Amino acid sequence: MLEGRAASRGLAVLDLIIRFVAVVATVGSAIAMGTTNQTLPFFTQFLRFKAQYDDLPTLTFFVVVNSIVAAYLVLSIPLSIVHIIRSRAKYSRLVLVFFDAAMLALVTSAASAAAAIVYLAHKGNARANWFAICQQFDAFCERISSSLIGSFVAMALLVVLIVLSAAGLARR
Amino acid sequence: MLEGRAASRGLAVLDLIIRFVAVVATVGSAIAMGTTNQTLPFFTQFLRFKAQYDDLPTLTFFVVVNSIVAAYLVLSIPLSIVHIIRSRAKYSRLVLVFFDAAMLALVTSAASAAAAIVYLAHKGNARANWFAICQQFDAFCERISSSLIGSFVAMALLVVLIVLSAAGLARR
Repeated sequence: MLEGRAASRGLAVLDLIIRFVAVVATVGSAIAMGTTNQTLPFFTQFLRFKAQYDDLPTLTFFVVVNSIVAAYLVLSIPLSIVHIIRSRAKYSRLVLVFFDAAMLALVTSAASAAAAIVYLAHKGNARANWFAICQQFDAFCERISSSLIGSFVAMALLVVLIVLSAAGLARR
Repeated sequence: MLEGRAASRGLAVLDLIIRFVAVVATVGSAIAMGTTNQTLPFFTQFLRFKAQYDDLPTLTFFVVVNSIVAAYLVLSIPLSIVHIIRSRAKYSRLVLVFFDAAMLALVTSAASAAAAIVYLAHKGNARANWFAICQQFDAFCERISSSLIGSFVAMALLVVLIVLSAAGLARR
């Protein structure tokens, strides 16, 4: 019994560590995307060629969602600490499972929508006459592409968190 | 104790029903999207103006993912039936939680990526010089927009399924 309790505590500690990593991943994604802009080194009298993340509404959505998920994860840390101490907690774990699943859906939707737009920026689409803007805005594109990584990492971590909570419930 | 058992059985039956509904939703989405095409009523000697879902790779991804998730849900139905009979099952529920969470991420990513592209087709983007193709292909756009519904319904249902499995584990 004592052994089982130590294992439950181990799961809870792992849960806490993963939450910290996921906070860093989502905050990193939000900041990397939110500070992206590129001004091309040539301009005419009337036009400056400038690309910024909020030219594309999907990328604005990406920044907002990553901030929301990061805020949720920070708020969930105290609950996670409670689970280390009280390993038999039941309802608080169920609440975490629900919100973790909702946040998983949210961060996945932001990451995938942004990925679809980034793919389009790289490849364009000949049938729809959408041009690959990355040919001009190469630094901009590199930056928005790498911003996605943190979000996809957070997605994988949230799946692990859900399974950990379920395992915690199963072990009680 | 007998009362608690009846409640557990109720949760398991609800789980089964929701899986059936989610199968219908994802299959419906895949079929609605996969059969979308529109040919405009005018053409030149060299060009026929035709739009098909697989002109946009993201929409092909949408059809494939919805089919995969539907197949998974069908395969999970026997396990769900086992849980009605054996309400104290533990490891099989953990397996379901893991795969439900993975499928939630998958279907959300397909639905959101497709939604981002559909939004672009409707609104276009002036900064990137991407035109709103829906002005020409109105029936095509209406169809791809409504195909998304089933996928988003499946997303919500998968969140419910994860919470139900967790509740089942908590009640044991």
